[in-house]
Amino acid sequence: MIFVTRIEHFNAAHKLWNDRWTPEMNKEVFGKCSNPNFHGHNYELHVTVKGEPNPDTGFVMNAKTLGDLIKTKIVEVVDHCNLNMDVPFLFGKFTSAENLAIGIWNELKDEIELQHCTLHCVKLIETRSIYVEYYG
Amino acid sequence: MIFVTRIEHFNAAHKLWNDRWTPEMNKEVFGKCSNPNFHGHNYELHVTVKGEPNPDTGFVMNAKTLGDLIKTKIVEVVDHCNLNMDVPFLFGKFTSAENLAIGIWNELKDEIELQHCTLHCVKLIETRSIYVEYYG
Amino acid sequence: MIFVTRIEHFNAAHKLWNDRWTPEMNKEVFGKCSNPNFHGHNYELHVTVKGEPNPDTGFVMNAKTLGDLIKTKIVEVVDHCNLNMDVPFLFGKFTSAENLAIGIWNELKDEIELQHCTLHCVKLIETRSIYVEYYG
Amino acid sequence: MIFVTRIEHFNAAHKLWNDRWTPEMNKEVFGKCSNPNFHGHNYELHVTVKGEPNPDTGFVMNAKTLGDLIKTKIVEVVDHCNLNMDVPFLFGKFTSAENLAIGIWNELKDEIELQHCTLHCVKLIETRSIYVEYYG
Amino acid sequence: MIFVTRIEHFNAAHKLWNDRWTPEMNKEVFGKCSNPNFHGHNYELHVTVKGEPNPDTGFVMNAKTLGDLIKTKIVEVVDHCNLNMDVPFLFGKFTSAENLAIGIWNELKDEIELQHCTLHCVKLIETRSIYVEYYG
Amino acid sequence: MIFVTRIEHFNAAHKLWNDRWTPEMNKEVFGKCSNPNFHGHNYELHVTVKGEPNPDTGFVMNAKTLGDLIKTKIVEVVDHCNLNMDVPFLFGKFTSAENLAIGIWNELKDEIELQHCTLHCVKLIETRSIYVEYYG
Repeated sequence: MIFVTRIEHFNAAHKLWNDRWTPEMNKEVFGKCSNPNFHGHNYELHVTVKGEPNPDTGFVMNAKTLGDLIKTKIVEVVDHCNLNMDVPFLFGKFTSAENLAIGIWNELKDEIELQHCTLHCVKLIETRSIYVEYYG
Repeated sequence: MIFVTRIEHFNAAHKLWNDRWTPEMNKEVFGKCSNPNFHGHNYELHVTVKGEPNPDTGFVMNAKTLGDLIKTKIVEVVDHCNLNMDVPFLFGKFTSAENLAIGIWNELKDEIELQHCTLHCVKLIETRSIYVEYYG
Repeated sequence: MIFVTRIEHFNAAHKLWNDRWTPEMNKEVFGKCSNPNFHGHNYELHVTVKGEPNPDTGFVMNAKTLGDLIKTKIVEVVDHCNLNMDVPFLFGKFTSAENLAIGIWNELKDEIELQHCTLHCVKLIETRSIYVEYYG
Repeated sequence: MIFVTRIEHFNAAHKLWNDRWTPEMNKEVFGKCSNPNFHGHNYELHVTVKGEPNPDTGFVMNAKTLGDLIKTKIVEVVDHCNLNMDVPFLFGKFTSAENLAIGIWNELKDEIELQHCTLHCVKLIETRSIYVEYYG
Repeated sequence: MIFVTRIEHFNAAHKLWNDRWTPEMNKEVFGKCSNPNFHGHNYELHVTVKGEPNPDTGFVMNAKTLGDLIKTKIVEVVDHCNLNMDVPFLFGKFTSAENLAIGIWNELKDEIELQHCTLHCVKLIETRSIYVEYYG
Repeated sequence: MIFVTRIEHFNAAHKLWNDRWTPEMNKEVFGKCSNPNFHGHNYELHVTVKGEPNPDTGFVMNAKTLGDLIKTKIVEVVDHCNLNMDVPFLFGKFTSAENLAIGIWNELKDEIELQHCTLHCVKLIETRSIYVEYYG
C-alpha cells in the first residue's frame, strides 16, 4: 500500500456566522471571522489516495488524473467564490475549515473509487497557522 | 545604509470590479476575480525601511516598533475585512494588489519618518504566484 | 472525527550536554550541539487536536482558543529563553527535540481535555532538516 | 514511542516510459513525463524513524547519524543522476515517485534497524504539487 | 511606477558540459553537474514587469495575461524538457541558470512591451540554495 | 551583468544587550531579546554576487565555489555558536541582524573579488518575520 498526495489551491471569501445567534453572540464566538462583509483566504488542499502501484505504470493513480478530478469537482466549484453564498455542497452549513474538508471528502470519495483507488485524507490549510485533516 | 524588512499577514475579501462597466465587460477583463459575491486571500506584507544602525542598539529601527506600527496602521484596518467595503484608504479605488500596496505605502510613509527612518519598499504577496512591489 | 492543527513559533537557545560525561565524550556524541556557550533555533510547533465538529460553530475547537492556550502554556514559557536554564518543565532533562515535544505534550494534554477535545499530536520542527512527532 | 524525521534533498533526471508500449501509448498515459530525452526534479526526501528516546542522550536516533546514513545509502546514489540509467536499486523499474519511495525504503530498512531504531515512513516530494508516502 | 511579479514553474533535465573539454576537465569544473546522463530540477521562475497602474483596472498588467504569456513563450517550451537537447533558444549554449535566465529574458522582452509594459527582472530559482537574477 | 545568489544556513544563540545600560533599560529597549541566558535562531543567509557569465562555463561564479567560500569563512565560524561570545568578527558589537550582515559582508568582500566577481548583497533572514539586507 502506498499513499499519493496531490496539492491544489483555491481562493475564496467566507464568514463564520450562526443565523440563530445575535450579532453580538457571533462577534463573541467567531471574533473577526464574523465580519458580515466577509474576509477570505488562499486555501491549500492536499488530497491523499492510497492503493497498490499498477504494474504497467508504477502509479497508484495517475497524478494528472487525480489533479484533473480535484480541479473539476472542487476547484471549479469553490475557486474565487464566496463559500457562504456560491457553493452547493456547503449550503446551510458553517463554512469552517472542518466543514469544508468534510464537504470536499464527500464530493471526491466516489469519484476516486471509480479510479480503483481509495480516498485516504483531505487536508486543508486555511492560513499559515491553521490546517485541518479528515479521514472519513 | 542597511535595509530592514518586517513581514506581517492579513486575510481579506475583495472583488475586482469597475462600476462604469457592464457585468459582461467586468467578467471579460477581470475573469473570476469579478465574482460579485467576492473571493479572498491570505496576504503577506513585507515592509522595508532603510537607515544607519543606531550606535546604541545596532538597530536601523527596532523590529518590534516597526511590527507594532504596521499592525496598528495596516493590519487592524484590513485584517478579516472586505477591501471593497471596509477600508477607508481604499474607498473609491480598485482593490488590485497594486492599489493596495500604494495605499499601504501612503499610510506608513510619514509614520516611519517619525521613527527617523525611511520607508524603502512595500511588497505585497497576494497569492503564491503574484506579488507587487512599490518604492514610492 | 476531524483533526485540527494550530502552528505557533518560538525562538530559544539550548545545548546538548550530558553532565555525567567528559567534555570530550559530549563533543563526540553531540558534535557542534555540545558548544558550552549554547546555540539556538527558531522552533515551529504544530499542535493537533481531534474531535467532532460542534453543531453550533462547525469547530472541533476554536482555533483562537487553541492558539491562546499554546501561547499561554508554552510560548510564554519557552520563547526567547534558554531551554537548559529557563524552562521549568525541562529542568534536569536533555533539551533534545524529542524531550521538548514530550514536555509540551505533558503541559497541554489536560488543558485541551478541559476544552472537550483530545490532544492528538505534538510536532516540533527544530531546523529545516529535522522534526519530531509525539502522539502520547 | 516518538517519531524523528530527517529531510535530505537530491536532484535527478528521469522519464516515465513502458518499454512494452508504443511511443504513442506512452505519450497517452504518461503525457509530458514520457519525453524520451528526460526531464527532472529537485526531490525532497523525509525519512521518519521511531523508537524510545535513549536515556543517555534524549535521542531516538542521533539525527546526524540518520542524515549520514541517508546521504551514504541514498543521496550519493541518486543525486545528480538519471533515475532510469544510473541507479542500481531502480534497474528495470518505472521511475515513478511511488517506486522510488519503495526503493529508498528497501535500501534503508535494515541499516536503521542496525541503529536499534525502526523505519516508519519514507515521504518523497517530487514537485510542489505531488508527494508520496510509504510505510512498508 | 509599480512592479508586478508572476511566478511560474517548470521541470527540466540538463547537464553542464563543455564540448571543447575532456570528460575529466568537465568533471573537475562542473562536478556532479557534468553527469553525461543528465540530472534535473524543478525550476521556479519569477518574471517582474513595471509600469503605471491603468486607471480603468488598477493593473500594471493583467496578471493572467502575464501568466499566459509566460506559459506560451517559456513553460510550453522548457517544461518536462531536456535543456541541452529540446529548447531552441538554448541551442549551442551552456544550460547554466545564468544562460537560462538570459534566454528567458530575450524571449519575453518584446512580448511584454507589446502589452505596454516593461520587463524589469527575470529571477530563476534552480534549487533551494541557488538562484539568479537578470535585469537586461 | 547577472546576479547569482547562494543560500546557506546556520544556527546560533545570541542576546541583545548594551553593557552601558542597566538591566531595566536593556529590558525596556530590547524586550525578550535581552534575556541574559540567551535565545537563538535558525539563520538563513543569501549571498549575492554579480558579474558577466564566463564564456567557458556559463557561470558568473561557480555556485559550488561560492558555497564553499561561505561555508569556510562564515558558517564554520558562526554555526552552532554564541554570537556574543564565540565569533571574532562580532567581538565588541551588538549582535543585531544588521551588524551580523555587515560583519558577513566584511568577511566575504575581498574573498569574492579574488574570484573575479563582485559582492552585491548580504541578506540575512533571522526569523520568519524579520530580514535585513546590506549592499556595502
